[in-house]
Amino acid sequence: MFDRRPILLIIGFLLSILALGMLIPALVDFMYGNPDWLVFLISSALTLFIGVLLILSSRSGQLKFSLRQAFLMTTASWIVLPGFAALPFVLADPNMGYTDAFFEAMSGITTTGSTVMTGLDLMPPGILLWRGLLQWLGGIGIIIMALTVLPMLRVGGMQMFRVEAFEAQEKVVPRAASLASWLAGIYVGLTLAWAVMLAVFGGLPALDATVHAMTTIATGGYSTKDASVGHFRSAVVDWIIVAGMIVGSIPFLLYFQTVRGRPLALIRDTQVQWFVGTVVVGVAAVTWWLWQDGGMSPLEALRYAAFNTTSVMTGTGYATADYWQWGGVVGGAPVAVLFCLMFVGGCAGSTSCGIKVFRFQILGAMAAIQLRRLLQPNGVFIPYYNKKPIQEGVAEAVMAFFFMYALSVAFLTILLGLTGLDHVTALSGAATAISNVGPGLGDVIGPAGNFATLPDTAKWLLAGGMLLGRLELFTVLVLFVPRFWRD
Amino acid sequence: MFDRRPILLIIGFLLSILALGMLIPALVDFMYGNPDWLVFLISSALTLFIGVLLILSSRSGQLKFSLRQAFLMTTASWIVLPGFAALPFVLADPNMGYTDAFFEAMSGITTTGSTVMTGLDLMPPGILLWRGLLQWLGGIGIIIMALTVLPMLRVGGMQMFRVEAFEAQEKVVPRAASLASWLAGIYVGLTLAWAVMLAVFGGLPALDATVHAMTTIATGGYSTKDASVGHFRSAVVDWIIVAGMIVGSIPFLLYFQTVRGRPLALIRDTQVQWFVGTVVVGVAAVTWWLWQDGGMSPLEALRYAAFNTTSVMTGTGYATADYWQWGGVVGGAPVAVLFCLMFVGGCAGSTSCGIKVFRFQILGAMAAIQLRRLLQPNGVFIPYYNKKPIQEGVAEAVMAFFFMYALSVAFLTILLGLTGLDHVTALSGAATAISNVGPGLGDVIGPAGNFATLPDTAKWLLAGGMLLGRLELFTVLVLFVPRFWRD
Ligand SMILES: [K+]
Ligand SMILES: [K+]
Repeated sequence: MFDRRPILLIIGFLLSILALGMLIPALVDFMYGNPDWLVFLISSALTLFIGVLLILSSRSGQLKFSLRQAFLMTTASWIVLPGFAALPFVLADPNMGYTDAFFEAMSGITTTGSTVMTGLDLMPPGILLWRGLLQWLGGIGIIIMALTVLPMLRVGGMQMFRVEAFEAQEKVVPRAASLASWLAGIYVGLTLAWAVMLAVFGGLPALDATVHAMTTIATGGYSTKDASVGHFRSAVVDWIIVAGMIVGSIPFLLYFQTVRGRPLALIRDTQVQWFVGTVVVGVAAVTWWLWQDGGMSPLEALRYAAFNTTSVMTGTGYATADYWQWGGVVGGAPVAVLFCLMFVGGCAGSTSCGIKVFRFQILGAMAAIQLRRLLQPNGVFIPYYNKKPIQEGVAEAVMAFFFMYALSVAFLTILLGLTGLDHVTALSGAATAISNVGPGLGDVIGPAGNFATLPDTAKWLLAGGMLLGRLELFTVLVLFVPRFWRD
Repeated sequence: MFDRRPILLIIGFLLSILALGMLIPALVDFMYGNPDWLVFLISSALTLFIGVLLILSSRSGQLKFSLRQAFLMTTASWIVLPGFAALPFVLADPNMGYTDAFFEAMSGITTTGSTVMTGLDLMPPGILLWRGLLQWLGGIGIIIMALTVLPMLRVGGMQMFRVEAFEAQEKVVPRAASLASWLAGIYVGLTLAWAVMLAVFGGLPALDATVHAMTTIATGGYSTKDASVGHFRSAVVDWIIVAGMIVGSIPFLLYFQTVRGRPLALIRDTQVQWFVGTVVVGVAAVTWWLWQDGGMSPLEALRYAAFNTTSVMTGTGYATADYWQWGGVVGGAPVAVLFCLMFVGGCAGSTSCGIKVFRFQILGAMAAIQLRRLLQPNGVFIPYYNKKPIQEGVAEAVMAFFFMYALSVAFLTILLGLTGLDHVTALSGAATAISNVGPGLGDVIGPAGNFATLPDTAKWLLAGGMLLGRLELFTVLVLFVPRFWRD
């Protein structure tokens, strides 16, 4: 069997970072005079202890990863981390079992945002901050991963986004570290900017502004209010968050290039163009229906359409309306559009999830070539992405990804149905988990509902779905290939 | 522009055959003393007149098809034929507009089986026979097409099913004609066998037995009763039809090989194995739920599960229960399983539609290769189908087909939503039309519902969806490529 020490070493490091993160809500709760500060301190100590133990016991191992080690490390760390991140939930809330706590933590760290918690409005600041922090850490985690580990693993066509600075040669490590620091800096900067905007222009209290800024840029969707962003009844807040969700769904590498004086990279990227174009078309269509058939004024229609459409497509999952109910007023079209957009998601290399825009571009290019090939069976056609020929193996990987995505949603739907969920809850639950969106459809888990009432088995299944979607399916699925474990 | 005379010539021939077909219900209605015989006679005369006119006016053209002519001929004939097949519906029923009549005819000829008619139990025999006959003709039409035109057009990987006898060389025309006659003979023989079984063992009256035999082997699903096969309340009838639906979903070429003394071809075909395997697993699962949670006796559960699961998966669309309501009793799992199976369909070269089993085999093979390639990035993996390496271009064609299938369902769902349908009706309507199944989900178009109440626009959209699905998407889509019409 291959050496597992480098894996345990990395997990040890990540747990230590998580433990440090727990000190922030501890500090805030202490400042607010809330007794929960002890909960966070205990959780932090426990997590740090295990983390340091892992580091010390694995130190002798090399920090060089084989492919299999990288796969196992990635999936294992995204299971172990929520396992510990769940501790404060269990300790702080006497009514919360470990299943609920793990669900909430996995939903946080994968930036899904499905919640089992109610009564958020009355919760102490520490726990609200911890939920936001989890999504925020998960967001930067996936950005770094999408540039470092995933291209190396070549899952679902991610090798297209290989960055030279991260190539697996030891001499570029300083450059990789520098790029990662830049990205983290941009991430922090954007979050701060949105927190300030929400506080100053939106009039939100510091805690609400901070948490919403974090879960907006992370396209996570955890709110500090049961009624989500709808609670604030503010057009200004809505529009600031719309802009933030879009910012969070664009490849962060392009921001780095912009900062480094190449702003054209951002504008010329076809994935960004298609993403923004789809958002604009989706918002325009939904606005039209809400205005013409839904009886809203044009401005009101635009505001609600922009917020909820962007929220669903970027997979953020905030709500300012129970948008699935729009169908009852104006027919099934907006519901169908939103349900489809839920699978699309944002751009690769951003915090958002779903199938992602670049895959649709490649699938579209392949379908177009098929159509042309029908007319010219002997013609030679080369598929393009972002004005460059698509490298070998990527198209097949993307198509296989699309098929496995559909299959995973179908399979998870059936499993959820087995736990007794009705078919609307089961299907939309599977879709919302794998696409890391947050709310599902229907009365139970819709934007106005909550995941608390689901059976425990369903919660574990959904947590599995979130992990699967966040790690681009194949990172997890490859562990089920018997060959993986063979020497 | 390319020569359209061969296209008109073929359509002229097909219309003449259709006109002859109309004489059968004319004769039956005349024998039963029903005045509708005149309706069929007039429709027949009109259709024959146009058919002969087309033949005479295009006679001078060559009967050799370019690729573009073949594409246009295929789609055009599947639009023109229902256009004339609709005549008896309009003339016989004073309440039926041309939209409804065209919908019913398209639904018939594509073997979809969605209906706008109610009061079937009291209808004259001619119209019932005409509906059955349309599906029956559509069934043999698609079998011949899947062996002749579609492999030549190479749509969605159908080139895999190229048969030497049909290769485009003139000297093999006699062999092609012989094979086509054999297949038609087998089709007639199977229909007769099932009609006799339904009459003798099932105790059905001659007309009911004939129509159900025709629409069973054609996996069409038009019944002579509003309550579909459930009307007969007979386990024997149910089981005879289950067997018939399975027989209709297996490649007819394999029956030909069996008749010619090679029965092993049928047993060894992996598409057949996977199809039968999926049916068995699906039926077993649904039986289990109906028995354990639905309160049925094991035998009763098996009967209802076998009938309705096979009906949905083969895309026949008969019902002996409002199966979508099973979810309310036993959770969403059976509904989810049935909804997924709806997309699967039967085997290529049979009368059934959907994505088809061979495409899932190829998609599965490609996904498995992706997983292995993740572990061995430099490995060379060759995908297999039916124990032979998959020929070049097929895998891409199949994957593009899968993507376009999903896209078509999504697009049609949105368009249907625009006509005011609720989202369940819109989604399941799009799926049932493109997969040529028949009933949708929900109160409106479910197995207990009817398509009559839908707006006219929705009916035209659904008819378009049926055509798209029946002709393997790309045959129709290629006509929308501007290059197709350019010289
Ligand atoms: K989310
Ligand atoms: K059917």
